[in-house]
Amino acid sequence: MELMKASRFIKPGEVRIETVPKPTLEKDTDAVLKIVRASVCGSDLWWYRGISQRPSNSPTGHEAIGIVEQVGKKVTNVQPGDFVIIPFTHGCGHCAACKAGFDGSCPNRDRSKPAAYQAEYLRYENANWGLVKLPGQPDDYSDEMLNSFVTLADVMATGFHAAKSAEVKPQDTVVVIGDGAVGLSGIISAKLLGATRIIAMSRHADRQTLAKEFGASEIIEDRGSAAVAKIMELTNDAGADAILECVGSNESVDTAIAAARPGAVIGRVGIPQRKDLDTSQLFHNNIGLRGGTASVTTYDRELLVQAVLDHKINPGKVFTKSFTLNEIQAAYQAMDQRKAIKSLLIVNH
Amino acid sequence: MELMKASRFIKPGEVRIETVPKPTLEKDTDAVLKIVRASVCGSDLWWYRGISQRPSNSPTGHEAIGIVEQVGKKVTNVQPGDFVIIPFTHGCGHCAACKAGFDGSCPNRDRSKPAAYQAEYLRYENANWGLVKLPGQPDDYSDEMLNSFVTLADVMATGFHAAKSAEVKPQDTVVVIGDGAVGLSGIISAKLLGATRIIAMSRHADRQTLAKEFGASEIIEDRGSAAVAKIMELTNDAGADAILECVGSNESVDTAIAAARPGAVIGRVGIPQRKDLDTSQLFHNNIGLRGGTASVTTYDRELLVQAVLDHKINPGKVFTKSFTLNEIQAAYQAMDQRKAIKSLLIVNH
Repeated sequence: MELMKASRFIKPGEVRIETVPKPTLEKDTDAVLKIVRASVCGSDLWWYRGISQRPSNSPTGHEAIGIVEQVGKKVTNVQPGDFVIIPFTHGCGHCAACKAGFDGSCPNRDRSKPAAYQAEYLRYENANWGLVKLPGQPDDYSDEMLNSFVTLADVMATGFHAAKSAEVKPQDTVVVIGDGAVGLSGIISAKLLGATRIIAMSRHADRQTLAKEFGASEIIEDRGSAAVAKIMELTNDAGADAILECVGSNESVDTAIAAARPGAVIGRVGIPQRKDLDTSQLFHNNIGLRGGTASVTTYDRELLVQAVLDHKINPGKVFTKSFTLNEIQAAYQAMDQRKAIKSLLIVNH
Repeated sequence: MELMKASRFIKPGEVRIETVPKPTLEKDTDAVLKIVRASVCGSDLWWYRGISQRPSNSPTGHEAIGIVEQVGKKVTNVQPGDFVIIPFTHGCGHCAACKAGFDGSCPNRDRSKPAAYQAEYLRYENANWGLVKLPGQPDDYSDEMLNSFVTLADVMATGFHAAKSAEVKPQDTVVVIGDGAVGLSGIISAKLLGATRIIAMSRHADRQTLAKEFGASEIIEDRGSAAVAKIMELTNDAGADAILECVGSNESVDTAIAAARPGAVIGRVGIPQRKDLDTSQLFHNNIGLRGGTASVTTYDRELLVQAVLDHKINPGKVFTKSFTLNEIQAAYQAMDQRKAIKSLLIVNH
């Protein structure tokens, strides 16, 4: 049995690299991938901080780029040696959800096991359609571009999903709630879709700087009703044409509803905390609510890979600190303590 | 003081024609209208049945067509003598909501007084933009077309709002929940927007017949989980591309969510009963929720008036019984007892 190094969640506040069996093909639709770079996601902090539950000794991570090492019999779109983005989603490509462009909601995957991307190797389900092939090899790209490709496994596509769900269109005034890597990617996305005014909500200097670099025209530091008042002031009491809700907390959803102009859509990608939304607030102002798990493979193929290749977007800048796989605990700590906006893991390159 | 006949709500189960002062202009943006035809709305049954509260002796009705009799100084788009649709909405035409095409959510109107369209005359707010001018005079039209124009004051535009909110597009499979005049108008609208398959939920023979005439390809008589099972069977387990929720009850919202394919939008026009929706159900499948009060003036001008003039749609068929204004009590009774799908009131023509 071949062995590899992989991250394991031990207990809240502790992750550790262990030596474990290297994964193998289990199904004809699987691929085994050699991880090149991976990353830590803001959503990983939920269980790292003990807010959500996770079994001890479970694997971690769901964002990476890598090289195809081995493919199952039914995998023909990618070959061993191909350089790929490894989406956290696993779209089969042939169900109603995938066909409609919502591969994040594909039902044809095993959701029982935690993702295990923070490792040297990974078994990937639905590899034939789900993986996104990149031109060339890692050596052909700068660090900056490799990092941008890593964001295309989740955060950049998730930010784009917020913008698409909110139906951002040219000339829109857009509010982005959340200044994590997803919110910052939402700013990039709103700009990519033609928004002329992007109001970002952020109270951290490093994130404000990046927000402006990515296209934010205004920054609001307030929260709750004070933030809504500022948005109303900035929009002549009209409210925003589109809201990107990238947090999921009750306060951020309330802010989103209050800041939307009649007919606007809230595009949400933050997992909703609240179980009891009074939707008559939405009804009264014809406000729409859309969103969910991002269509990673769809968006990557449609435009995000090309936008990175063309240097049109540079989402890899959200990685403000870089670590080796062995430094996994430090990578988590940096994000937990807000010393990094997002932590990169250099695994094999 | 001039007098007129007008309907008054007396108590649950009783409406009555009384002689009251004829309304006059109160603001420069008002018009006084002579009512030609009016109608009873399914939503009027809430207070008629005592389900919602309404003050005794309050006026009734919110759907009509009429002739402009007098206009305020700031009303220049319509002139005395013009034949108009009188939307239940009162869009000002210059706020953010109206400009964005959501005149049903216009904040610039007095919502404190109940509408009073079941009468010989009516004072109409925001007449300059809100009223929809028709070519010619009532005499130029058949009864059938006059009746279709009456539906353009509310139900047809509301059904269309459900379809637009649900983002119905060509080739879609659409589910319409609700077989009242709004649901039936939703079927017309789904067809108008190019849906190829329209699944209507109805258990009443007269409504089923009209549903099919309007474009329904399948009828489902079941409700709840049995209805969802049928929809799934009809769509090869994919779910529907768009759902028109024209009821507002908890059961109909639950059915809408369960019957939607991932990424589909629920267009809702039924006032939501539930105050505590667990929106994580929507998030999981990327299902959107949109809708509210219809954009009556916008849709009428954009395409609904022309569609009636071109005999492309015939929504006036929802009126299966006709009454004079004096027969107002019988008009309500017929709808309450489901002897009419919708009751027409012939006032001055």
